[in-house]
Amino acid sequence: MAGGGDELKLVGWWASPFVQRVKLALRLKGLDYEHVEENLESKSDLLLSSNPVYRRVPVLIHNGKPICESSIIVQYIDEAFAGTGRNLLPADPHERAVARFWVAFIDDTLPKSSWGKTEEEKAEEKKKTAEVLEKLEGALKDCSKGKTFFGGDNVGYVDVMLGGFVGWVRATDAMDGVRTFDPAATPLLAAWEERFVELDVAKAVMPDVEKLIAFANAQVLQARAAAAANSS
Amino acid sequence: MAGGGDELKLVGWWASPFVQRVKLALRLKGLDYEHVEENLESKSDLLLSSNPVYRRVPVLIHNGKPICESSIIVQYIDEAFAGTGRNLLPADPHERAVARFWVAFIDDTLPKSSWGKTEEEKAEEKKKTAEVLEKLEGALKDCSKGKTFFGGDNVGYVDVMLGGFVGWVRATDAMDGVRTFDPAATPLLAAWEERFVELDVAKAVMPDVEKLIAFANAQVLQARAAAAANSS
Repeated sequence: MAGGGDELKLVGWWASPFVQRVKLALRLKGLDYEHVEENLESKSDLLLSSNPVYRRVPVLIHNGKPICESSIIVQYIDEAFAGTGRNLLPADPHERAVARFWVAFIDDTLPKSSWGKTEEEKAEEKKKTAEVLEKLEGALKDCSKGKTFFGGDNVGYVDVMLGGFVGWVRATDAMDGVRTFDPAATPLLAAWEERFVELDVAKAVMPDVEKLIAFANAQVLQARAAAAANSS
Repeated sequence: MAGGGDELKLVGWWASPFVQRVKLALRLKGLDYEHVEENLESKSDLLLSSNPVYRRVPVLIHNGKPICESSIIVQYIDEAFAGTGRNLLPADPHERAVARFWVAFIDDTLPKSSWGKTEEEKAEEKKKTAEVLEKLEGALKDCSKGKTFFGGDNVGYVDVMLGGFVGWVRATDAMDGVRTFDPAATPLLAAWEERFVELDVAKAVMPDVEKLIAFANAQVLQARAAAAANSS
């Protein structure tokens, strides 16, 4: 319950970075909510009826009304609870447009998964990711105005939207023995990540990295078994 | 000039549906602006410096500050000039989220161009487009609440974002001898299109359909010549 008679239900799935975003936003606004864990292999009627177009998590249901797509949900939370907790989007229209631009950029460019990709595809993706991170480093420099976060001293919309990925970034970094937010290449993003994971909201919301690694390893084994079965 | 010392410059290109959206929004808000026509084969320093990430039109430059991406620009116009002309996005946060959802859906699903596609690809695309239009028909029914437009009695955010495509829809319909917004399959969208093209703002902004057809035919000839040169 969000207080004042508001009922907030989040249809989610523990490992989804898109669900993490919504959880971060709800916590930053200080809103209580009921989490409904979805089984993605057998989707619930609640998910299918509240997101009939995309049939995917996250869906936030506020007083019975569903809102879909993480970027839209996070903006909704900020607008519907404008008087509650911290503002996520900047007040200035131009700064708001810039924040929306970088969120769209993140969603357009960041790779979602490298499972099942060839080494050549992975190398190509790594190059692209480096270019993307270089642009994000510039964005962080501009938006933060010398502070830590895209939102300045405090996390804001872009931080929440990028922050949803941090659990998976840490998991894949550990698995591959790399550092995506490399202090040598993108020092501001590296510092951002270090400060972000120390936030109470991040600690409360981020899935356990070991659990993500175990999940990823199981997926890889499953994909290999399927490939072996198909080629035999 | 937008009045009050505001300087609005739109870096655009006459045939772009994305630029049409911004023109529609500016006119609906009653804002004057300077149009800077871009040569997409030799992009200007103004375009490259104001949209270094995507290097594409439209870019709106407001008092020297650039805003990129049509959906972000239209929201910016609505927010930066909240007291001017008509509100494009609904005032209610949930209705605003629903409008944003359908705009994202339009941008994710509507085919941008069928030039150079095979007949098989075109048939597959036609099937997908029919599914998309069926969903949009449902959205129009829900959003319009028995009125004509997604915005109700007046055009709003979704109308502007879909409306940018109407010139090209009419041009390709004329070329292919079809009706995309088919009165038999999607009667509400068909009525929407008929009312939309009669709007003063649409008449003022929509590119000439004959000119679009001539442009498309020239592109097809050019693509065929290139294909012939590559295969010889």
